[in-house]
Amino acid sequence: MGRPPRRLLTADWIADEALKMVDESGDFTMPGIAGRLKVRPSSLYNHVSGRSEIIELLRARMMAQIDVEQVRERAAEWPELVLGIAREYRRSYAQHPRLIPLLTATTVQTEVAFGMYNALADAFTDAGFAPAEVLHAITSVDSYVLGSALDVAAPEEVWATPPEAGEAMRAAVSAAGTMIGRADAAFEFGLQALVRGLVVLAEPVAAPE
Amino acid sequence: MGRPPRRLLTADWIADEALKMVDESGDFTMPGIAGRLKVRPSSLYNHVSGRSEIIELLRARMMAQIDVEQVRERAAEWPELVLGIAREYRRSYAQHPRLIPLLTATTVQTEVAFGMYNALADAFTDAGFAPAEVLHAITSVDSYVLGSALDVAAPEEVWATPPEAGEAMRAAVSAAGTMIGRADAAFEFGLQALVRGLVVLAEPVAAPE
Repeated sequence: MGRPPRRLLTADWIADEALKMVDESGDFTMPGIAGRLKVRPSSLYNHVSGRSEIIELLRARMMAQIDVEQVRERAAEWPELVLGIAREYRRSYAQHPRLIPLLTATTVQTEVAFGMYNALADAFTDAGFAPAEVLHAITSVDSYVLGSALDVAAPEEVWATPPEAGEAMRAAVSAAGTMIGRADAAFEFGLQALVRGLVVLAEPVAAPE
Repeated sequence: MGRPPRRLLTADWIADEALKMVDESGDFTMPGIAGRLKVRPSSLYNHVSGRSEIIELLRARMMAQIDVEQVRERAAEWPELVLGIAREYRRSYAQHPRLIPLLTATTVQTEVAFGMYNALADAFTDAGFAPAEVLHAITSVDSYVLGSALDVAAPEEVWATPPEAGEAMRAAVSAAGTMIGRADAAFEFGLQALVRGLVVLAEPVAAPE
């Protein structure tokens, strides 16, 4: 009879288990992965160099879902490019919100990520921003999108309304009470604000002399 | 001689341990806290009702550090109020970035939080936004601030520059290479953009007839 066939250990399979652990508990460990895969921890190191390589594999998966080329083709001006990329980026990262703090705590290395970062850098350079401002603008979009991806995992009732909630806050929460797709609508609202604000900041620089 | 005096178990002490676990591993469990405090898990329930009460205790701690009244006193117009609150909010949350996904996954209940949310709701109502837009604007600031608080925990080298990094991205990363306070500068840049964009969105509504 012999043993049942065993799935061959690969870096992808290791990343699968790490992602499941992150979804369940917010983090993963090498011994934890080894335990779940029923292999010795040392066997993992035949396939990945360690924790940070696994995080980069997971970042690559998230980034691979962002169709930068399609967005580039459809965007006539840089603000549309930024809007389109931000929407794709959030859609991808919202699937695994608890992965986000691990990704932001680690240097971006995976080549797959640079499809998106290059498109943003090109957009903000076209807008007339200086290199340091280009990086700030990219970081702003990054922060807004990642915060918004966390909001997708928010409970249906984001805010309770204890007696301390004032009149304006109470009216706002109750307006949202009946709202389908609150997180999506809020994301789009704030994204429009952020990009319009970037247009305003770009103007003095981008204006022809 | 007897036993050494034992610290009395309190909700605060339980929250302390939960926060340490979150900082270390991204999450906490009731058995985990009990193990660290060397008490039976059932003893914890004499002081807190469970996981979500602990999360609210931690949210209350973060929110208690935001000096809303001082910001309200100094802000002449609603955009300054929003800027001031966002800065305070980020400063507080950046201390425990790994707590952020737990907070965003749970309904806001602690009364302490409503000092800040009321101030934002009042600001956006003053700006002329309708209640549903007030909530979207609050959510946008929330998302931007929480994403930016995660960026504070980013490594000094946020982006590596593999061969895939294009010219514009490479120039941006290298401009930031020599920058002290990159995360602070990026936060302020994006916050200015977001608030200016909100001013633009508010204008048609807020303009006097």
